[in-house]
This record gives sequence, structure tokens and C-alpha cells, in this order.
Amino acid sequence: MKILEEGKTVKLSHGNGGPETSEILNSILFSKVEETLKRVEGGVGIDVLDDGATIPIGDLGYVVISTDSYTVKPLFFPGGDIGKLAAAGSINDVVMMGGRPVAILDSIVVQEGFEINELEKIMESFISTLKEEKVSIIGGDFKVLPREELDGIIITTTAIGIAKKPIIDRPKVGDKIIVTGNLAEHGVLISLYRLGLEDKAGNAGLLQSDVMPLSKYLLPIFEKYGEKINAARDPTRGGLSEVLNEWALQNKLIIEIDEKSIPLREPVVKYTEMLGIDPLHLASEGVAVLSVEESVSEEILDELQKNGLSDAKIIGEVKKEAKEMGIVLMKTAIGGRRVVEPPRGELVPRIC
Amino acid sequence: MKILEEGKTVKLSHGNGGPETSEILNSILFSKVEETLKRVEGGVGIDVLDDGATIPIGDLGYVVISTDSYTVKPLFFPGGDIGKLAAAGSINDVVMMGGRPVAILDSIVVQEGFEINELEKIMESFISTLKEEKVSIIGGDFKVLPREELDGIIITTTAIGIAKKPIIDRPKVGDKIIVTGNLAEHGVLISLYRLGLEDKAGNAGLLQSDVMPLSKYLLPIFEKYGEKINAARDPTRGGLSEVLNEWALQNKLIIEIDEKSIPLREPVVKYTEMLGIDPLHLASEGVAVLSVEESVSEEILDELQKNGLSDAKIIGEVKKEAKEMGIVLMKTAIGGRRVVEPPRGELVPRIC
Repeated sequence: MKILEEGKTVKLSHGNGGPETSEILNSILFSKVEETLKRVEGGVGIDVLDDGATIPIGDLGYVVISTDSYTVKPLFFPGGDIGKLAAAGSINDVVMMGGRPVAILDSIVVQEGFEINELEKIMESFISTLKEEKVSIIGGDFKVLPREELDGIIITTTAIGIAKKPIIDRPKVGDKIIVTGNLAEHGVLISLYRLGLEDKAGNAGLLQSDVMPLSKYLLPIFEKYGEKINAARDPTRGGLSEVLNEWALQNKLIIEIDEKSIPLREPVVKYTEMLGIDPLHLASEGVAVLSVEESVSEEILDELQKNGLSDAKIIGEVKKEAKEMGIVLMKTAIGGRRVVEPPRGELVPRIC
Repeated sequence: MKILEEGKTVKLSHGNGGPETSEILNSILFSKVEETLKRVEGGVGIDVLDDGATIPIGDLGYVVISTDSYTVKPLFFPGGDIGKLAAAGSINDVVMMGGRPVAILDSIVVQEGFEINELEKIMESFISTLKEEKVSIIGGDFKVLPREELDGIIITTTAIGIAKKPIIDRPKVGDKIIVTGNLAEHGVLISLYRLGLEDKAGNAGLLQSDVMPLSKYLLPIFEKYGEKINAARDPTRGGLSEVLNEWALQNKLIIEIDEKSIPLREPVVKYTEMLGIDPLHLASEGVAVLSVEESVSEEILDELQKNGLSDAKIIGEVKKEAKEMGIVLMKTAIGGRRVVEPPRGELVPRIC
């Protein structure tokens, strides 16, 4: 663990969701908490890098819980807004742990002078997403900061679900890697906005955010295939590369994916090339990555596609145990092999 | 319900925790959520104004959960800092519902350029409070915003506890009102800082924040007296007047308190007079207000005092049912009676 030096300050890259985020969290938090307080006994806590945490509740199984602060800019974008993102994002983190979401809490911090009709639109979008999901809103907070101290709005949501048996990410050798939809759609759209290029893409209807809750697609699969699902994660901050690298590193595995099979739409490829960003580093907000036993992989793919996720693909597999360090490899379209690195540095701030 | 007009903007007063906060939340949220989605079936949600929410979990009772965003400035103050406040504040909200806190999640949003050694101090204080309470930290989020968009740090914590039988605030006629310590200590200290007057008070050692977790003082009382505790709340934003007014209004009660018996230390009285602020509107962060059956009130007071809360006092009672609207009255020190209004307007921003 890298010790942070005296006099250092927080960088934008510390918030990118990749190795720099792990570094600062290790330094200020994880390394300072004694082992027994890193989880509730029998559950999952900060000792395991996953989308959420679990608390055992006897015969009912586990409470699954996840919290995230949403700071995306722009607040409104094709396909959604910060309200939909704040609902779907935390719901998906519970779903990825195998939890059935039942409730959400929201804490809103907004600047003085924020337009109330914009706030209403955001909340309507938040509420309608919860309504579709039948997730209750059971509590929250509301604070206002002077305009000198905050520009815009931050929504922190905590989603709570129940799981008979949570999915704790442990990909196994031989597993197939499935992604449930086209990747990087949300990330490339927001990147274009951040760079002032939205007219080129979003507004012309070529791109829109993929933000959506995944419960109805994934919970039936998780229920049916149970212990044959070895890992599930949504590739938000840091994209597919971050998810696969975390899996590979933590479990000392060689994961190999095939570039040709990665579902990326043509405008996404075009704009990531234009921006010089690797699409595997860019966020999706309505896609899952699964690591499932080979014996059921085709069947699961088939069911996902039949149930509406027609772009789902098998993109690779867990090849073998690593001798030294876990690593992610990719067979490139032109026949070679390259290492898929996790994102480093300040990529695209404020995508979620 | 007052409908917010087109073109209006969010005011600082919307975040004061009083009637204006209720107004805006009614307008943008509560009135838009269908009844069945205001709670998890069998639990408490946004349909009840209380410190937290509950979710039934079978034989074990209920999960109690509460979330709050901490935005206090200054970040460091005599008696604590934003880290201790973020831990104690959400823990206390779970305790006030009768829950035994078991876990917390924290979501940190910090500005680019924030000093890492300040962040470390804040996290050390956060962690040491959790350690004393034996509360596990099980998850969270970390985001960095550019300095143009955020000044400082916002910490949102969600605390989770378990309660066999939660305390849902329903004060009853005949109940005695107990406060467990000197009031307004946190609020007056932060007010002086906000006005640039900290040299007068805090730095001279006259005042310090009362921020502390209340679990060890209150959970044994709640366990012992069970259903004889009819309500429990911590008077944070909006102070004692907000808690009592909410109780009176929601339950259509006349609550009467006695000015002479309200525990306020001399420097607190002096500085609130100087500032022209009613101390009953100012926050405490380590005090509870209880509404308990008269038959056990003296005994409870005695136990609180013996266990270290030596300033605890009985300050009044639930007089009778209101014919029209619930109201809070106070016998003044000079023998009259006045209505205790809830705080309105922008009082003291950023106290929590």
C-alpha cells in the first residue's frame, strides 16, 4: 500500500473508480479499520470489493445494501437524468449482489438558487423509476448549500434488498464471461457533453445513455441458476476493464476476452476513437458483466436475449489461475493479444 | 400543501429542517409517491416523520435505517469534526428508533485540492467513533469534484441497526418530556463560527460541541422500559422546538414545557442572546428528547443521571389532546405562557 505523503492534496483522478481510488481509500480508511469492524459478522463488508454489502438476518437470508453519491453533469441527457441514474444505479448494485431491491433512501444536497422546476423533473424521474421497480422510498435528507460552495446537485442513494443467498464475486476457472448489452453507451455520451461536443452525438440522436434498472432481466436468471453464477457486476465507473481487472487481481486469475465479440455500437466506436478513450474504460449504467459456469452459459445467454437483452454476448472466459498476479488479456481483432489495463488518471469526471 | 410556483428557486431556508423543508419535500417528493411505495409493508417510511425508517425481517424484528448528508462548516471545531458528526449523527438516528446500530456506509464527495492530511484526520475521527460504538463500516463511495463545483467535503452516512420493536414516535397525553442533556451546545458554537466570532467562545474554551453517540445511555433504558417510552428524537436541525412541534402537530397534542427547567448552560444563554437566536431553535448533536409515561419518568431520569447524563431534566409534559391544531406552549420564567414556534427562515446554515 502506497502511503500518501504529507502536504498532498486530493486529485480528480482519486475519484475515477480505478486504482487511484483504491489507493486513497486504502490509505485513509481500509488500512485504519480493525479487521472485525470491516463487516458485520457473517456478512460482506469493505473486506470484499463488490458492489454492495450484506448483513445476515437469520432464516430470511441477508440484507443487501449499497450506497453511492451521484454527481453527474449534465444533469439531463438523452436517455435519462441524474434522478433516474440515482435510482437505477443503487438498485443495480443490490441486484448485482443477488438482492431483490425493496427500498431506497435518498439524500439530496442542492445549491441555493437551483431551479425548482428542474428539481421537480429530477425527482419525477427518480420516483417513476422506483415505481416501475416497485421499490419503496423510505427516508432521506435534504440540505441546501450556498451557491459559492456547491454548483448544482448531489444525490446520494442507499438501496436495500433481500437475498436468500447473495452473489459474492468469485469467478472460477472455466467460467464464461457474459456482458448483457452494448458497452460504454453512458460513458461516451457524457464524455461528449463534458467536452462540449454534445451536438455531434446525443442531440443528433445517435447516442443515448443506457441507464436502466436490471432487476427484471437478472433476478430470474440468478434465481434459476443459483450457484452456477459465480460473479455479477455492473461496469460503471472504470468500465469493463475495471470489473475484469478487479476479478482477475483479487482471485489471481487470467481472464481472456475476445475483442471481436465485445458488443460496441458503431457510433460508440467512432466517438471513442475520436476522443482517444478506450471504450473498455467507459461506464455503462444499464449493463451487467457475469461470470458463469460454462455448462449453463449458452442457456443463460439465450434467456437474456429472449427477455429483451438482444445485444448480450459471451465475450471471453476465465482461462486459468495466475502464477503471479491476476491479469486480463484480450485477443485483438487483428489476431494479436494485449493486456487490458484498468483505467488510470483522470478519465472522464462526473459520469455518475 | 403549498404548491411551489414556476420559476422559483431553492432557498437556503428550504434546508433548515423546519417547515420550509417539509414544504419543499411535500411538493417535490411526498405528494408524488403513491401510498404503497411510502414504506416497505409492515415498516415505517416517509409516511411517518421520524429519524429513520424500518423494514420488517421476521423473527429478528426490524432493520432500522437512517441516512443524512453532513455539510457542516467549519470542518473542525471544539468537541469534534465533520467525521465524528457523520458517525454519531446517523448512529443516533438509529438509536432514537430503538435500534442497536450494527453497521454504517459512508459516501464521501470531496473537492479537488482538499488537503489529504485533513481528510485523514476526518476519517480517523469517523473511524474512532465507530470503533467505540462497535459499529462496522461495510461500504461506501468516494467521488472528487473540481474546485469550481464544490468547496470542501460532504459526507453522507447511512446507519443500519436492528430493533426487536422499534420506537415509533407517538407521545401520549400524560407523558413527561425528558431532555437528556444541556441543549443547543452544538448549534451555538457553529453559529459563532459562521459569524466569524469563534474567538469569543469556542477558542476560549467556553463552548464545545456536544456531538456524541447516545447508544450506551439510551439503549439500556429503551430495553428496560419498552412500551413506556412513547417517543424519542434527537433535536438536531431545528432544535427542541422542531421536535416538540412535530410531535404536537402530528398527534394533535398540546405539549407544555417549563422554561425554568430547560437545561441551558450560562454561556449558551449569553451567546444566543447576543446573536438574537432562540436556543430552542438550535441543534444539539448528543442529546435526546424522550416522551415517557409519567409512572416511570422519575426512575428513567434517575438512571440517565446515574449513568453519566447528569444534566438530564424533565422539562414538561403532554398536557392534553388539541381541539384544533397541535401546539407547544412554554411557561416562561417570569410566569407567563408563550407559544413555542418551530424555526422558520434561514437560521444557521451548515450546522450538520
